[in-house]
Amino acid sequence: MSIETSSDLTTITDEEIFNAHLGGKLTVASKMPLNSKRDLSIAYTPGVAKVSQAIADDPAMHATHTWASRLVAVISDGTAVLGLGDIGAAASLPVMEGKSALFKEFGGLDSIPLVLNTTDVDEIVETVIRLRPSFGAVNLEDISAPRCFEIEKRLIEALDCPVMHDDQHGTAVVVLAALIGAARHTKREISSLKVVISGAGSAGVAVTNLLLQAGVDDVIVLDSRGTIHRERNDLNAVKAELAGRTNREDVMGGLAEALEGADVVVGLSSSQFDEAAIAKMNKNAIIFALSNPTPEIMPDVAKKYAAVVATGRSDFPNQINNVLAFPGIFRGALDSGAKKITEAMKVAAAHAIADLVGDDLAADYIIPSAIDDRVMPAVAAAVGSLAEETK
Amino acid sequence: MSIETSSDLTTITDEEIFNAHLGGKLTVASKMPLNSKRDLSIAYTPGVAKVSQAIADDPAMHATHTWASRLVAVISDGTAVLGLGDIGAAASLPVMEGKSALFKEFGGLDSIPLVLNTTDVDEIVETVIRLRPSFGAVNLEDISAPRCFEIEKRLIEALDCPVMHDDQHGTAVVVLAALIGAARHTKREISSLKVVISGAGSAGVAVTNLLLQAGVDDVIVLDSRGTIHRERNDLNAVKAELAGRTNREDVMGGLAEALEGADVVVGLSSSQFDEAAIAKMNKNAIIFALSNPTPEIMPDVAKKYAAVVATGRSDFPNQINNVLAFPGIFRGALDSGAKKITEAMKVAAAHAIADLVGDDLAADYIIPSAIDDRVMPAVAAAVGSLAEETK
Repeated sequence: MSIETSSDLTTITDEEIFNAHLGGKLTVASKMPLNSKRDLSIAYTPGVAKVSQAIADDPAMHATHTWASRLVAVISDGTAVLGLGDIGAAASLPVMEGKSALFKEFGGLDSIPLVLNTTDVDEIVETVIRLRPSFGAVNLEDISAPRCFEIEKRLIEALDCPVMHDDQHGTAVVVLAALIGAARHTKREISSLKVVISGAGSAGVAVTNLLLQAGVDDVIVLDSRGTIHRERNDLNAVKAELAGRTNREDVMGGLAEALEGADVVVGLSSSQFDEAAIAKMNKNAIIFALSNPTPEIMPDVAKKYAAVVATGRSDFPNQINNVLAFPGIFRGALDSGAKKITEAMKVAAAHAIADLVGDDLAADYIIPSAIDDRVMPAVAAAVGSLAEETK
Repeated sequence: MSIETSSDLTTITDEEIFNAHLGGKLTVASKMPLNSKRDLSIAYTPGVAKVSQAIADDPAMHATHTWASRLVAVISDGTAVLGLGDIGAAASLPVMEGKSALFKEFGGLDSIPLVLNTTDVDEIVETVIRLRPSFGAVNLEDISAPRCFEIEKRLIEALDCPVMHDDQHGTAVVVLAALIGAARHTKREISSLKVVISGAGSAGVAVTNLLLQAGVDDVIVLDSRGTIHRERNDLNAVKAELAGRTNREDVMGGLAEALEGADVVVGLSSSQFDEAAIAKMNKNAIIFALSNPTPEIMPDVAKKYAAVVATGRSDFPNQINNVLAFPGIFRGALDSGAKKITEAMKVAAAHAIADLVGDDLAADYIIPSAIDDRVMPAVAAAVGSLAEETK
């Protein structure tokens, strides 16, 4: 863990950012030298023909004698890019290059960004399926809801390799890890917590599902029109399904009504939290204000009402950062030959992250730092230990 | 140029080849360090959002602030892989990885291999079009004829970036370069030469077209059934079109009939050349026996009838190797912002290659070595000088 202060981060200038992006952030290299005719005869013709023929004869050698089985394709259509929204595939590429760079630096995995000039679900799915022999896993990124749910579901069904929409599940794993830490710090079980999720987009839905999977049983989800409940007739299929599994008492209204007596609020919607609504939460409240760059409520205000506060920002304590999850999840899945990334793996990944906090647990340290190098191996091991059931 | 003997090449063992391919031949790296929260804030969130927003506002910044504009996608469906034929996309990947490695090592360009699990022309074309914002140029590779002609034509029309099927045009450029050298050595103009092309696949068609473009005007092409002429009714559209522009005297028959009085034969078909047919060629014959690994006629035999002999093999003199052409062609096109790779660029590339031989011209040195590092810059300059007309 390096020692950085928030002033290190506030000194970043636009010029520095744009200069760092000149010519892009990624580079491809040959792993073997190609300086002589002898090198060429091994890596290319005629030598390579033996390797290709061997794969044609024994398809399993595709995994051992190409780079594909350890290559993650980062795939986006540019429809939900960070907080910028639908800026298109071309404009999304710097984000996807960054994601591929993170896969390499934090996961030790090669990765290529592929951005698609189509937002049609069928076309995205069939394009990725056609590219299947080119890679070993698919990280879907910044694809808008509800299309992201169907695209991920269909690709998981169609492909015999790990597929994960990180905006959903990476976020969910890290939120669960942070919630485990916050519950430990406040000496409670997560199953006892009443949780409110503000936002029913890709992250909100996935966080809800994973918390339920992990043992939380009282969750209320809000979209832009208020709480999601069974009386609403304006819900898409994903939200309608959620209404059947959450908000057991069909609480109606907005954030203030939902937070009445709540223990936890998770902000995933870029809307602002009204301080009066936050004040309705229970004692020892846990507030995760995850919008970037502007949290739903600033930590100094939130702390007036909460025992634990986390944000998505690196310049505040308790950063909920997907980089804690996705490198280890994909690394563990690829190392172990897992064909799927299961719900059990996600829960195990969250526990692995939370457990690294150990005796240092504190209100300002419920989750490891994004650059803690113990995280990836711990997550990969937890995920890999569950690979067998996917084969 | 390194000094290597054919014995260097014959010592390559299968074990060495397979070991060199373990885990694949390529790797992706981040161009900037990602060791601190500060690094992450520049390369990823929140910094990257400014770059993505800037591209959304000004699409021209996609070329300057992503890696795409200097990234070559090597695309194959695995239907015509080296001499192995239709071995499928997965088995073709080692060849495409090698090609990407060559782009980096010889062209200084990043490159990723994308192999497609479809052989349908429409599907391949639409897949590449959808991926357009991911790369800056398309190298089509090892796609079988006649599908390769339509795929390339449609992609050139659809995309505003360089697209080239290297098996066609890379081969054609290097054959033309070698023919220029051989003609110089034997003190003739290429326009005076009577040329026979054995093979009407992707390379045969492209070599024929480029030789005609460069000033050769007497060409006979053979496919597996004999000479292509206007009386044949078994020709596909591409060959029928060729029949109208070649074999002016409608010579019928096989290789022996075609070679009667010919100056040049180019073997591109993996069939063997009958020595008796070769004996019918004119004095000062030029024989390019390009099948790999077994030339249509071995150089020691060919030399009995020819002034100049070339093959595709690195262990004989005068290797006709595409690596002389494609790195410089793509590098020149991308450096200059060319939108297309034109016929004029290919002719210019061939002349640039041939001119490097200079005063060293000899029967065994009509073309530079595949690892001559003067070649790429010379080809790139020649191609780039013609970019303006494509914009």
